[in-house]
Formats: sequence, C-alpha cells, structure tokens
Amino acid sequence: MSVQSASADLGELMERLGRNAAAAASVLALAGTEAKNAALSAAAGAIRAGAPRILEANARDMSAARAADVTSALLDRLALDDRRVESMARGIEEVVALQDPIGTTAAAWQRPNGLRIQRVRVPLGVIGIIYESRPNVTADAGALCLKSGNAVILRGGSESRYSNAAIHACLGEGLKSAGLPVDSIQLVPTTDRAAVGYMLAGMTDYLDVIVPRGGKSLVARVQQEARVPVIGHLEGNCHVYVDRDADVRMAQSIALNAKMRRTGICGAAETLLIDRGCIDTHLVPVIRTLLEAGCEVRGDAAVQKADERVHAAAEEDWFTEYLDAIIAARVVDGVDGAIAHIARYGSAHTESIITGNQATAERFLQRVDSAIVLHNASTQFADGGEFGMGAEIGISTDRFHARGPVGVEQLTSYKYVVRGAGQIRP
Amino acid sequence: MSVQSASADLGELMERLGRNAAAAASVLALAGTEAKNAALSAAAGAIRAGAPRILEANARDMSAARAADVTSALLDRLALDDRRVESMARGIEEVVALQDPIGTTAAAWQRPNGLRIQRVRVPLGVIGIIYESRPNVTADAGALCLKSGNAVILRGGSESRYSNAAIHACLGEGLKSAGLPVDSIQLVPTTDRAAVGYMLAGMTDYLDVIVPRGGKSLVARVQQEARVPVIGHLEGNCHVYVDRDADVRMAQSIALNAKMRRTGICGAAETLLIDRGCIDTHLVPVIRTLLEAGCEVRGDAAVQKADERVHAAAEEDWFTEYLDAIIAARVVDGVDGAIAHIARYGSAHTESIITGNQATAERFLQRVDSAIVLHNASTQFADGGEFGMGAEIGISTDRFHARGPVGVEQLTSYKYVVRGAGQIRP
Repeated sequence: MSVQSASADLGELMERLGRNAAAAASVLALAGTEAKNAALSAAAGAIRAGAPRILEANARDMSAARAADVTSALLDRLALDDRRVESMARGIEEVVALQDPIGTTAAAWQRPNGLRIQRVRVPLGVIGIIYESRPNVTADAGALCLKSGNAVILRGGSESRYSNAAIHACLGEGLKSAGLPVDSIQLVPTTDRAAVGYMLAGMTDYLDVIVPRGGKSLVARVQQEARVPVIGHLEGNCHVYVDRDADVRMAQSIALNAKMRRTGICGAAETLLIDRGCIDTHLVPVIRTLLEAGCEVRGDAAVQKADERVHAAAEEDWFTEYLDAIIAARVVDGVDGAIAHIARYGSAHTESIITGNQATAERFLQRVDSAIVLHNASTQFADGGEFGMGAEIGISTDRFHARGPVGVEQLTSYKYVVRGAGQIRP
Repeated sequence: MSVQSASADLGELMERLGRNAAAAASVLALAGTEAKNAALSAAAGAIRAGAPRILEANARDMSAARAADVTSALLDRLALDDRRVESMARGIEEVVALQDPIGTTAAAWQRPNGLRIQRVRVPLGVIGIIYESRPNVTADAGALCLKSGNAVILRGGSESRYSNAAIHACLGEGLKSAGLPVDSIQLVPTTDRAAVGYMLAGMTDYLDVIVPRGGKSLVARVQQEARVPVIGHLEGNCHVYVDRDADVRMAQSIALNAKMRRTGICGAAETLLIDRGCIDTHLVPVIRTLLEAGCEVRGDAAVQKADERVHAAAEEDWFTEYLDAIIAARVVDGVDGAIAHIARYGSAHTESIITGNQATAERFLQRVDSAIVLHNASTQFADGGEFGMGAEIGISTDRFHARGPVGVEQLTSYKYVVRGAGQIRP
C-alpha cells in the first residue's frame, strides 16, 4: 500500500470515528442518569470479569516496552496488576456515585415581563482525549465523559495499545448492556501518530474539545496545531511558602507532605520559599526534615548555609517540575517576595502559604494567581477527589472554561431555557 | 521604509501593546469596584463632554467611507449623532450599575477533613476584541472588560478609525482620573490588517482570549488562525415554530415581532416553521401578518399555496441569515419535524416554539440544542439586557466557556481558595 493511500485510509477512519461520535453524542445528550449508570456499572463488572484478559494484554505491552528499552518510570506507569485493575473498576463505580450534572439547573430567575429563564447544564458534545502511557486513563476518561453525557474519542499511547484495547472492550460491553450507543466511547484503533494531527485540526466538525494528557512535547504540539478548544494540563511547578509567622512544626509537616507524599503527581511541591524573617528559626528544621526523608535540596546561598547537604540551585531550578525527590529552596523577602517569585517562575497550578498571620495569608491567597491557592494545607490536596468533586480528568492550568480540577461538571456546557406566555419585545 | 522593517515595526508595536496590557491586567485584577466604577463614570462624562470632538472624528470617517463607496448598511453602522453618543455614555453608566463579579464567591463548601474550599471569580486577564465598523463597540467592550477586571486590546475596523480613537481617548481620561492604568484599555493604533494576524497568533503570551465581532470572513479567519481561545459569535439563523396547539393570535404576534421588530440583529427570526397539523387554521393568518408588515416570504409549496405573494424558497434559503425583511417558511411534520429541520439548518443560536401544549413545548426545549430555546416568546429576547445580565459583548454560539449572552460574568475565570489548619494528605 502506498503512503498516500495509507493516509487517505487514515483520513477516512478518523472521519468515520467523528461521524460515529457525533451520532452517539446526540443520543447520549438525551440519555437518562439510570442508563448511563447502568452502563458504567456493567463496565466495572466487565473489567473485573475481564481482568485476566486485561493483564494478558498488558503483559504484551510490557514486553514490547522492555524490548524497546523505555524508562523505568514509563514501565511503572504502564504496568497493571490485580490491584490496579480492581482500582480501575472501583474508579468507574465512584463515577456512578457522582451526581449527574446533565439537565440540572445552574441558575434560574424571572424577569419583570414574566419570562422565566433557566440555565440548564448540557453536554459539551464530543470530547477528544489524547494521552500517553497510563492505561487507566482509558477507563477513567471514558467513564467521566459518559457520565457527563459526552461521546469521547480516546487516543492512547502506542506503548499501551493492547491494554487500552482490552479495557475499551469492557467499556463497550457496559454500553451495550445498557442499550447505549457503543460509539459513545471509541478508541482510535491505530498507533499512527498522524491520527493525533487529525484530532487536533482535521475533525473540527466533530470534536468540541480536546484534552491532552501528557508531557511537554504533546502539550506543545497541541498548542501549535489545535483548531478546536483545548482544556490544557500543563506542568505543576508548585510552591510552599513558609512565612515568619508559621508554626515551625506545621511548616515541617506540610513541606514534607507537599513534596514527599507522592513526588510524581502534578500537585507535588517543587520549590520551597522561606521568609528571610525566619531564617534563624524555621529554615534549618524544615530543610532537615526534607533531607532526612531522602529529598535532595537545591538551595540558594542562604539555604546552603543551613545544611552542608544542600546543593547549589541554578536559575533553571526555579522553573523545574522535578516530579522526583528533589526540591528547590530559596529565601525570599516576606510574603511579597514569595508572591513575586511565584509570579515569575510558577506555572499557576497550586501554591500554599504556611502562616499563623491571617492578614499575610489573605494577601497571598488574593495575589497569587494560581488555579489553587492554599493556606496551612499541603499542595497535594490539588485533586478533584480531595475537593469532593469525585474523579477528575486532571487539573487544568488554563483560565478559560475550566480551571483547576476537571470533573464531570467541567465537562459540560449549558443552554438557556426561557418560558413565556406570549411575550414580544417592545 | 522597506516592507520588512514596516512589519518588524508592527511586531514591536503589538508586542508593546501586549506587555502593556499584561502589566495593566495585574493591577486591574486587584482593583476595587469603586475605582473601576469611578473610571467608568468619568469615561461616560468624558464622552458627553467630548461629543463635539467625537462627532467631528466621525464626520471624517463618514466622508472617507462615502468616498470609498461603501454600502449604506455600513454607513448606517458607522454613523454617530448626538443621540448615539448619549446612548454610548448611558451604556457605560449601565455597566457601572452592574454587580462587580470579581472576588465574588461562585461556590463554597467544607470537606470532612476541615478544609474550607471557595471558588472565587477572577478576571480572564487580557482580552482581544476584533470588530468591524460600529464605533460604539469601542465604548461598550472597553467598559465591560474594565468592569470585569480585564485589560483589553481593541482592534476596530479601519472605517471607524477616527471615531474609535476619539472614543478611546475618553475612556483613557476616565482611567486616568480614577488612578487606574491607562493601558487597561488600548486601541491598536494602526489600520494594518496584519495587526489582526498578530492578535490571533503572535501574542499568545499576552492574550487570554479573543472575541471576534464581525462578518463571516472575519470569523473564518479567526477560526483558521487563532492560537488563543476564542469566544465566537457566529450567525443567528433563528427559527420560530408554530405548533398545531398554538394560539393563532399569539403565533401571529410572536412571528411578527421575532422577524420584524428589528431585522438586523442576530436574534431576529430567519425561518418560520409551521406544523402540518395546522395548515388550515394557522398558516394563512401568520403568513399574511408577515406579508402585510412588508416582509418578503419565501416558502415551500405548501406555504406558497397560502398566499400568492409568497416566493419559492430554494434549499439555500433554509441556511440563510437574511438580517433583512425576508423570512423563509416551511411546513414540517409536527414538533419532531421542526426539531429535525433546526438540527440540520440552524446555527444553534435561538429558537422559539409557539404552542399551548406543555408536553410538546418541553420536547422542543429539551431536544433543540441551541444556546437559547424559548416557549411562547419572541426570539428577539436573545439579548443580555433582556436576560437581566446587563450589557453584553454579544451572543456566543460556542459551547465552550460561554454560551448565549456574554456579559461581565462570562468574561471571568475563577480560582480555588482553600483554607486549612495544617492539613496534610494521608
């Protein structure tokens, strides 16, 4: 087959996926909560029942990945076991338990002329999700899109192709058993990288929004090529600021948790800022707590003085999302110094201030322009579940449409329903 | 000067506008309601006081436009007089009266672990508005962006360049007198069409959203070139559906108002759909009402039979936004026929059903997927002011971020403020 006809075939394939999704979306938009929940429960059951098949598919992906000599971090993200499969099934059941946003009234009011206006939540339509190696995204994202009444086209990483296909088959069983269109959740059945290009720019008639979940190169490609709206998930270069009025033990405990509880999530702290006004009292205990937990500290001159195990930080450290047991640390001039540092180096994801001073806290909370700002709490609370919003697609670092955790409500649009009694406009 | 250096100059100019806007936005985000309202009131005063200068500038634009032999519709949109200047000033004062959305709490809740979570409205940041000949957009859009704490870069049509500059100067006076950055509202000071290209794709570091207000060629260019989020305002191919259970007089009155009250607005009806079940009773009176008001009717065979003055409709009529005293009219098979016609030909803007049957109405309201759906009311209520939302930038036909009327609330984003007492994540 020539390259040209392969690409024509891909175009036809993607066009068909788009048409199928649009047709499914128009049915899903009117589907009741019961049908959607029935499909999800059946999908969770199919995943449990299909665990052997899923693990077998995953073993194929793993051996191909090992043969391709990928990083151990990628292998870890790719690997499934009984526990991870069970947690996928349970994740879907958590989505069942969420309130269905579709058809709910976001606001309602009456006008002096008697018109009753209601803002009602409706699905976005068709969502395209482009993600990398984690196979559980197939289940999570499929479930969240279905619950919010959206059809979805999933484009997973080639490393997890067999795992994704096996999980996707279980979602399809769920849809079928509930009488919903199986095309509600479609998986792009090719690893051809050109398929991503179609999703970004060639399917504007079908896709209402694209959600990229992956590293910097994917995000950069999406920003350059996308012709449909995007819910972006950029990096989380998160900060903890220890103020002069912080309780030292609280500062130790939060800094440790924010950095070390899990280092690989986007809400993990990457830079510690310490108020110059409490170098003598707070700097040493907080830095030692981190060092003793096995965290590498890269500090400015003042932080290096605190402990000889501290390495020297370079300018680029302030920009870096390590996603590892490494933290950059710097002394700043009070809360305004912290605000200025975050404005310059941060990624507007999640930042926390530790202080006992209410006025200082409010200044930080108001002036730091990030999706999530916390007072006396760990940055690792940056999570839809921890916010009480249920499962999430991720944490949006965009300001448009959705900011912070993206759960079912953020996957909706709305329309205005206006009820009158013959009103005409004067 | 060579073309190359002219384009380098334009790049520098746009870059400077972007930097200025970003700097102004960071000040504006923290500005209080009083300061913003003081700036707006002073701007309204400056427009009243500056009316002679504004009208003089407008006269220059008008004579240039006449010399360029533009359409009379464009001349009408361009023309200012004392009444229109006064209505601009009053429009700004209406924005003063609106509730300031910034800093308000959209939602607040507490978690079992004691964390208090608050979703607080914040500005989007920097808004770019690209519009065509109406000079009043300069005042309206500038005022709405300022009230919502956003810096704005306005790019008006070249036909209205002198009028826009005169109005913009009045807005600057208002900002200055209130001690707010004059760069909060900037007007692109060149008519070079390449400036639009910079706004769409060359200023992604500065612009948070683009709002295009103009004809199809502008909208098409924006969709092709934009690398920043867009709030789109496509056409309003709006429908009125007269059901078999409609009160005939109400149908006459609403059809007439929806089409003829003002034909040039996006909420004007463009197609009339009549239930086959009431041809004998409703078709003739409704069509005659329109004809007698001076409306041209283009109908299918059944509608042509109703009155000999009805012209034959072609397929393209069902797609057409006339913005004129012309209406397409067709007989459909009940409410489901109307829903199917709208799904195929509509622009998802605004549609109305006239019926006394509640179940039929609810079916229409639920199944028609438009930004605004009405029961027994005129489509001309599609307007932020009529919705009680105050002044508007326009009616968004997008599903993402903002749908329907775009007022100050739709020009905001949000952030999460989380208050704890030392919580760490288990």
